[in-house]
Amino acid sequence: MYAFSNAVNSMHSEDVKQLMKQASGKNLISFAGGMPNNHLFPVEQIDEIYNSLPETVKKLCFQYGPTSGYPPLVKSLEDYLENKGVVVGDNKILVTTGSLQAISIITQEFVNEGDIILTENPCFVGALTVFETFGAEIHSIPIDKHGIDIEALKSKIESLERKPKFLYVTPNYHNPAGIIYSPERKKELLEALSGTGIILLEDDAYSDLYFNEDEKHLTKAMKSFGVKDVEIIYTGSFSKILGPGFRLGFMLSSEEIFEKAETVKQALDACTSNFMQILGNEFLVQNKLEPYLKFLRSEYQERRDLLQKHLKTHMPKEITWNEPKGGFYVWLKLPPNISSTDIFNESVTKGVVFVTGRTFDPASKKDDRLRLSFSNMPKDQIEKGVIILSEAIKEVLQNSKVVLS
Amino acid sequence: MYAFSNAVNSMHSEDVKQLMKQASGKNLISFAGGMPNNHLFPVEQIDEIYNSLPETVKKLCFQYGPTSGYPPLVKSLEDYLENKGVVVGDNKILVTTGSLQAISIITQEFVNEGDIILTENPCFVGALTVFETFGAEIHSIPIDKHGIDIEALKSKIESLERKPKFLYVTPNYHNPAGIIYSPERKKELLEALSGTGIILLEDDAYSDLYFNEDEKHLTKAMKSFGVKDVEIIYTGSFSKILGPGFRLGFMLSSEEIFEKAETVKQALDACTSNFMQILGNEFLVQNKLEPYLKFLRSEYQERRDLLQKHLKTHMPKEITWNEPKGGFYVWLKLPPNISSTDIFNESVTKGVVFVTGRTFDPASKKDDRLRLSFSNMPKDQIEKGVIILSEAIKEVLQNSKVVLS
Repeated sequence: MYAFSNAVNSMHSEDVKQLMKQASGKNLISFAGGMPNNHLFPVEQIDEIYNSLPETVKKLCFQYGPTSGYPPLVKSLEDYLENKGVVVGDNKILVTTGSLQAISIITQEFVNEGDIILTENPCFVGALTVFETFGAEIHSIPIDKHGIDIEALKSKIESLERKPKFLYVTPNYHNPAGIIYSPERKKELLEALSGTGIILLEDDAYSDLYFNEDEKHLTKAMKSFGVKDVEIIYTGSFSKILGPGFRLGFMLSSEEIFEKAETVKQALDACTSNFMQILGNEFLVQNKLEPYLKFLRSEYQERRDLLQKHLKTHMPKEITWNEPKGGFYVWLKLPPNISSTDIFNESVTKGVVFVTGRTFDPASKKDDRLRLSFSNMPKDQIEKGVIILSEAIKEVLQNSKVVLS
Repeated sequence: MYAFSNAVNSMHSEDVKQLMKQASGKNLISFAGGMPNNHLFPVEQIDEIYNSLPETVKKLCFQYGPTSGYPPLVKSLEDYLENKGVVVGDNKILVTTGSLQAISIITQEFVNEGDIILTENPCFVGALTVFETFGAEIHSIPIDKHGIDIEALKSKIESLERKPKFLYVTPNYHNPAGIIYSPERKKELLEALSGTGIILLEDDAYSDLYFNEDEKHLTKAMKSFGVKDVEIIYTGSFSKILGPGFRLGFMLSSEEIFEKAETVKQALDACTSNFMQILGNEFLVQNKLEPYLKFLRSEYQERRDLLQKHLKTHMPKEITWNEPKGGFYVWLKLPPNISSTDIFNESVTKGVVFVTGRTFDPASKKDDRLRLSFSNMPKDQIEKGVIILSEAIKEVLQNSKVVLS
């Protein structure tokens, strides 16, 4: 029931209508929700933390905190970032109510109605909702398997008469595309932005979820590349490494940007829950994060492997995809003239849901892809889900051939 | 340290500078913070709730929830409101990250830069910060001991060339004025708004904190007066009846206003923490609220009584005030030509802080009052604090007489 509501949050409104029409009384298999599975949360660890909090700290849980964040958590986040190779230096951390709030704050800080924001295409739909809600004019740049298309980015910037306020990217284990930017592409991106005065908003919600230790270095944040002439705001989240229910995230930025962001935060919700910040802080301080991440990586890798195996076995050859090296998502590519929405409509009637490609296109049009999330998937449902989805795809392919011939 | 940061959150920026200058190394007595005392929080009750959550519910704590709120909490809030005599009827509840977020959402829903908002004078400073941040033009109406000045409100509305978007009021145990609107004044206010098309934003954070059971009926919400031709948005909070650290609040409004508010909420932080919502819900469902409120009322009443007693004993006769019948605040009135800020500067050097009157004036000028909060005050510090404050006031009075003579 709640998982259903959650999945719906990230779906295209037309798809939700279709889902509601079809779903009543059915036991759906969902590749839709971009969230962890309930059974993977570190419940025992948080139990232990909660029950061993000193009385004075427990009382602080109930109290207001400073707008910028619970000071011990700010310190722990600095250590966490330094461990990831992100140099904090003169930058400041603002703790936020989830990293979506950081994106929202930055948008409210920089964007007036009609101002331009650059995004990737496809783009995280939560961020698109924020940008649209605050009236931004969104221009999107295609990505390939190594990251944002640099030439397309450059020509877009040249073609615009007004300077975009910022470029929003999710370079590590992209939602929905599943890719990770190559180090070269990250470097080229910074070069392309150099001298333009366009701020880079680097959303890094998934970088701890690499599947292979050897690839950890690929997750290096652009914020830590030492480039001086590109202003970078970096955002992080506890949603994928502890639980979205904590609504804990943060942004790392120059002091000037931080100060304005703090004022906006004060006007949005005064401060982030001390209760959640204190539990999140202890999770870091008591070194519970790294062992938990080891567990998560192996769980997600196993799901990714199962999904890959069954996709290879059951998908018609017209369907292609890149194997994700971390994160939550596989981004299937459809043959020309086949729309993700048509497949969705067929698939829902058969009992499988996912998120359609157009959901991640700011123009709500480009529909030649579909997103499968494996993070929330019970392992024993993956094969069945893939078989049903394959059948739906085959039917749509078949019908389109009939129409075409 | 953190209590200090919290107090600073609600203080005038110039006063904070003065405080910082004077406070280093000193053990200040603070009447400043408008929050509960750490020792009053229901820590044991929440411990019990947390540790008896079924495993499946505990896992839900970690997960995303619907933007509108955790459904069982929405239901419990409906019951809570019905118990308070607020008829929910066709209205809808949106759970928010504190009631300040509700005020923020409503402002973002209705107010564009330059639009007019009406407030009381004095007005809750958190709301003023929100209205200013979103670029509203604020017009304030004086209040007396029975509520907002109806004639002043009517002439203000007549004098304005543009229709205000809403009138923001805190009728029950006003922050900072400590008053409760009389039932007649509430009725007159609704009559004054009738036919104007101006929305009433009724902020009701303190109504559960009446000190005398006989006066409970006075807290009746205008939302429940059954007036059809005034659109009323009602906001409530867990901050004063559970703990601000939960960041839990809600708004009750027509479905049309709810739907737009839900869209804004989605773009602000996706959803309120399930973890906090589940604990808050159990607090209501397990009937822990009412016994806790009984305890709180008696604790706050005791502090109010002590403060009254010591004020009567020590304050110079030129200082007057109304005895609050609930809530957190005493609002001292100064004689003509004496400013709250002068007293603040003197008082800080002697070791006592409070919040200056001008903090609650949208124009940051009217400074003939000062706010004493007794909610966060250790009982054994009240007398000492009042004596020091009285001395500071006497000195400022003395100096002003020297200057005047």
